[in-house]
This record gives sequence, structure tokens and C-alpha cells, in this order.
Amino acid sequence: MSLNKNHQINPKISTDCVIFGFDNEGLQVLLIERKPVSDREENNALPGDLIYDDEDLDDAAQRVLKELTGLSDIFLEQIGAFGSPDRLSKPEDKKWLESVRQYPDERVITIAYYSLVNKNLYKPQASSFAQSAVWVPVSEVTTLAFDHFEILKAALKQLRSKIKTQPVGFNLLPAQFVLSDLHKLYESILGRPLDKRNFRRKINKLGIVESLNKKQTGVPHKPSLIYKFNEENYQRLVEEGYDNFGF
Amino acid sequence: MSLNKNHQINPKISTDCVIFGFDNEGLQVLLIERKPVSDREENNALPGDLIYDDEDLDDAAQRVLKELTGLSDIFLEQIGAFGSPDRLSKPEDKKWLESVRQYPDERVITIAYYSLVNKNLYKPQASSFAQSAVWVPVSEVTTLAFDHFEILKAALKQLRSKIKTQPVGFNLLPAQFVLSDLHKLYESILGRPLDKRNFRRKINKLGIVESLNKKQTGVPHKPSLIYKFNEENYQRLVEEGYDNFGF
Repeated sequence: MSLNKNHQINPKISTDCVIFGFDNEGLQVLLIERKPVSDREENNALPGDLIYDDEDLDDAAQRVLKELTGLSDIFLEQIGAFGSPDRLSKPEDKKWLESVRQYPDERVITIAYYSLVNKNLYKPQASSFAQSAVWVPVSEVTTLAFDHFEILKAALKQLRSKIKTQPVGFNLLPAQFVLSDLHKLYESILGRPLDKRNFRRKINKLGIVESLNKKQTGVPHKPSLIYKFNEENYQRLVEEGYDNFGF
Repeated sequence: MSLNKNHQINPKISTDCVIFGFDNEGLQVLLIERKPVSDREENNALPGDLIYDDEDLDDAAQRVLKELTGLSDIFLEQIGAFGSPDRLSKPEDKKWLESVRQYPDERVITIAYYSLVNKNLYKPQASSFAQSAVWVPVSEVTTLAFDHFEILKAALKQLRSKIKTQPVGFNLLPAQFVLSDLHKLYESILGRPLDKRNFRRKINKLGIVESLNKKQTGVPHKPSLIYKFNEENYQRLVEEGYDNFGF
């Protein structure tokens, strides 16, 4: 827990952050390892901590993320509140809480946030009670501390719902890309295969990518056309409130 | 505030409910009037109160809604947490809090919920600190106590986003209806006109309504075909995860 003499901890409210990172290896999530209380896998957790009593919820999420992982200036979107009365009651969680919190038996409601970033631009640095802070493939996560696995699933659901109604994700690709990169990005986020032909047809129809009229070189397959993102058309769609990005 | 000797109040967490009601007069919202602390319009508020410390958030929302308005068994969906440190600091709100709360200066974070119901099936009955509980047209609400107007806007945004990706709203119509009723329902929720022809084409294509092959009688205009909801096709779409209901 961060000790800051100028702020009083709110013992009943915490914040947790689900940071999704994308690169060519697929969708990952940023997890911290708590200082070990046992050898169990549940020592992995989302970065999260109690808020200060004079702190806005959004600010608390930014601060806690930075304190535990070093990541800052990330656009965080709220998922919602998770407040089951027994969410902190697993024995290994209780043991850990007793080692770090002043009131380990207090009921805590957490406000969860999520973001999707280009993983290659953020190098986590663990600090505070985090022993490590690492990117883990979402598909490999099956259990987490507290109710964090439930929060991760809710974040994934919200992210998947969002990419059906808003053009998101282009900041995750390099400035020049081939359409199969974009296709792979959408498949990674949705967690299911997407028909390639329908995907290409729809993306072209939206006008949010444009061909640079040049092809890949030095690839061990038939070279593909290189595209760039059409920022102007993208912004126009956002402003028009266009909301049909289902594939 | 409800006094229940078996439960301890959590002084830092509340819940507020945005109940939208639809009938032929358009989209309404259920508001309570607090026992007057002044003549100002801000005495209107969403039904809400502190949670108990041993209570699940969803249960708290159901209980508080019932205690203040008599409404029960409503499917409530969480909007999220609202927690600006100054959300309770308007002078007229402070005065009211001093009259009902044990710790009126405590910072309170609220977890907001919403629902959309057939207004004609729910007759609110005010009790506890609510002096009245009434349906008010959403379009006429311009100010509310605390940050409740902001919460109302967030609820409306979530409702509007939902009807673009899921088939909702049929429980708000009578068993037999004409397509203009359905069109009006969607326009009321979206708060904007929808092209009638596109709307009808899309609804027919989805197969979620079916004609009863009979027409209205005794209407002062050209009689319209009467439809019923096709529950089977609707469920199939939901199960298939169909998510393109934008009009």
C-alpha cells in the first residue's frame, strides 16, 4: 500500500485496472504478482489498491496503476463496480490482506477500469507491493486473486462489445500495415475467427484504410498490398456516431 | 433512511436507480421528491440510499428501489460507479443529508443501476424519505439532486447503446401491435426520428415480428396490419449473439 501522509485512505473502496496489450503475439493482459503468501497461482492479480478519500475515481485508477506497474497516461474506461460481500474472503487472499492492510477485514467494493494499448510501447516496472508486473496472454489466464478473474472477463466483454460499435484499434498497428494484420487484431480481440473476405469487404467499404499502392517485399508468400489508416474518414465516422462495426 | 436493526449501514456506498418507463406518451423516468428542504426543483432525485455493509450491490439496488417507490422484481443492470469527491456538496443537498444521515459529511460513492419497463404495469408508491414517486417525461428533466442528472444521462446512453446491439423493448408493447407502435418505441428510446421505411425493412428482415393477417378497425386513418412478436426468432437471434440492431 502506498503511504502518502497527505491523503487518507478510504478503507472501503478500491480500484483495479485491466490493461490489455496487443502485439503480433495476440491479446495480453498486465498482471502483477503479489509478494508471495503461498506458491499458488492466485498470487497473480490485476493492479489495484484502495483509493484516497479525497480522490476522484478516475484519478485513483491512474495513480494506482502507476504506483504498481509504472504505466501512466493511459486512457482508462470504467467497467463498473464489483462488490460481492465475500469477494476478499479466499484464505490466501485474507492472508495477503493481513500483511498489507490496516483493516484487512473491511468489506471493500472495487471500481474496475480497462484499456487497450500497444503492448510494445509500455514496459511495466513493478513497485510498491507488486513483486513483478508482466504481460500474460489472456488465453492463458484461468485464475486470479480475489474476484479479479471475473473482472477480467467483464473487461473482455466490454472491449468486445465496444469494437462492434466503434472503430477502435488502429493505434495498435504500425503506421503501415497489411490487411491481414488488421484482421488478426480483430480476431485477437474477439477471440474467434472472422471470415477474411467479409472482413476485407467491410473495412474497404468503411473507407477507414487506404492503400499506399505498394506491396510487401521479401516475404515468403505472395506479397500483400500495404495500407495506412485514413484518420480523416475515421474521425468522420466517429463524429457521425456511426455504430455498426460488427464483422 | 431505512432503519433495520439487523443490518449495519455502509456509510460510504450508496445505490441509485434509473427506472425508465415506456408507454404511448414516450420515455419517462421514475423520480422521487425528497421531503422538502427548499422550494427548488433539485428536490427531485433518483430513488437511492446507502447500502448495508453485508449486502450484495444488486440486492441493495432492489431493496432501496422497493423501499422508496414500492417497485419490485425489476431487472436492474449496473451503469457503473459515480464518485466525484464533491458530488454531495451542493448546499441544498447538504442540508437534506444533515436531516436524514448519521454521517452527512461522509464521502459517498454511488453504484447506479437502470432498467426499462412498461410504465403501465408499475404504479409507484412513495415511502421512507420519498414524499412522492412519479413518472416524469425524460425530455422534461433538466436538473436533479446531487449528480443524479449526470447519472440519468449515463443511463440513457447505455440504454441507447444497448438497443443497437440487442433486440430489446418488445415486452413494452401489447401482445398485438402495429408497426408504427414499434417505430415510436425505438424513436422514444433513441430520442431522434428514424426513417420509417428503413425501420420496417430491417424489422421484417430480422423476422422478429409476424403479421396476424388482420387489420386495425375503427381507426380514423387507413388501417394498418396487426403484428405479434415472434418470440422464437427473437430468442434465436439472442442465442446466436446477433448484434446489429442499429437503425
